[in-house]
Amino acid sequence: MKNSLLQQIQFIKEIDKLKYIQRKTKLFNSNRNENDAEHSWHLAMMVMVLAEHSNTKIDILKVLKMVLIHDIVEIDAGDVFIFDTLKEHNNTKEELKAAKRIFGILPKNQAEEFISLWLEFEEGFSKEAQFAKAMDRFEPILQNTSNNGGTWKEFMVPKEKVINKTKGISKGSETIWEYSLNEIELIFKEL
Amino acid sequence: MKNSLLQQIQFIKEIDKLKYIQRKTKLFNSNRNENDAEHSWHLAMMVMVLAEHSNTKIDILKVLKMVLIHDIVEIDAGDVFIFDTLKEHNNTKEELKAAKRIFGILPKNQAEEFISLWLEFEEGFSKEAQFAKAMDRFEPILQNTSNNGGTWKEFMVPKEKVINKTKGISKGSETIWEYSLNEIELIFKEL
Repeated sequence: MKNSLLQQIQFIKEIDKLKYIQRKTKLFNSNRNENDAEHSWHLAMMVMVLAEHSNTKIDILKVLKMVLIHDIVEIDAGDVFIFDTLKEHNNTKEELKAAKRIFGILPKNQAEEFISLWLEFEEGFSKEAQFAKAMDRFEPILQNTSNNGGTWKEFMVPKEKVINKTKGISKGSETIWEYSLNEIELIFKEL
Repeated sequence: MKNSLLQQIQFIKEIDKLKYIQRKTKLFNSNRNENDAEHSWHLAMMVMVLAEHSNTKIDILKVLKMVLIHDIVEIDAGDVFIFDTLKEHNNTKEELKAAKRIFGILPKNQAEEFISLWLEFEEGFSKEAQFAKAMDRFEPILQNTSNNGGTWKEFMVPKEKVINKTKGISKGSETIWEYSLNEIELIFKEL
């Protein structure tokens, strides 16, 4: 049996652990926490469905790959809540170490491709990364508005902070940001 | 706000229900059932990682889209266990009705694209559908072998039936089928 196939299968088994990483946000109209694997699938579906609203033409395959792998580092580094004031939601040393360990299970060329894709997402400069990040910010807006404020209410996050942490959506899609801002305003009127 | 965006957002909310559809198979080395959203994410990752083993060159974007949407009909039609003897694991009337209702939430051009992709997967004739289906059969083999026989042992499925239901993997990838058959033989020796 080819050695590369065995490495790939080991990786496929390892990433099963993403299904145990709990996010702070809840499913739609629900009190059940979402896990990172479900979240990644949902973002991939959002990319397929919403790509036409991107500000610029994007490579959809690349964006799909990005959202599918973007949280795999959390198997080692854990989920950091976007409104956490102690830990910055940034490309931490822990996350880079995790990327090297987990993607490093793959054959060298794939490991390099995945680490590079993940870094591109984290840096957020390319148009593909900006659209992927827009989806990552938009899903919790939809979830929180379906849950009467959700994590914003639960953790008493003020409206200005929500807007500040999500306004980057406009770099990926002005249309989706316009919709999001409207939803945020509506929910905070009711809280 | 554009009507198409509102339809797309309604669809994104609707498909959240996939996270509640339980499969018979369990997570790796685990007793916890997998749900359809987690399963779809895992297949998408497998496509990214294993595409090089396809018998023929495939359109990876198309295969990714197929595996991401392939189980959405189960929101209405439920999960049918592959070894169920009463219900055939086929493209049932219920599933077609579900596809039309759920994908029909989307703007017309997207609804048509998604229904067509789903039908192509179900029919299993195209090389993309064959590779997607190979992934759908391969994941439970990996899960069951990590769980000392898993659902095969639990539901007392004989080896010949397992081989019969999974041998279609070879249409997508001879390499992966060779690996799979070896794993199946090993596990049944221990049962």
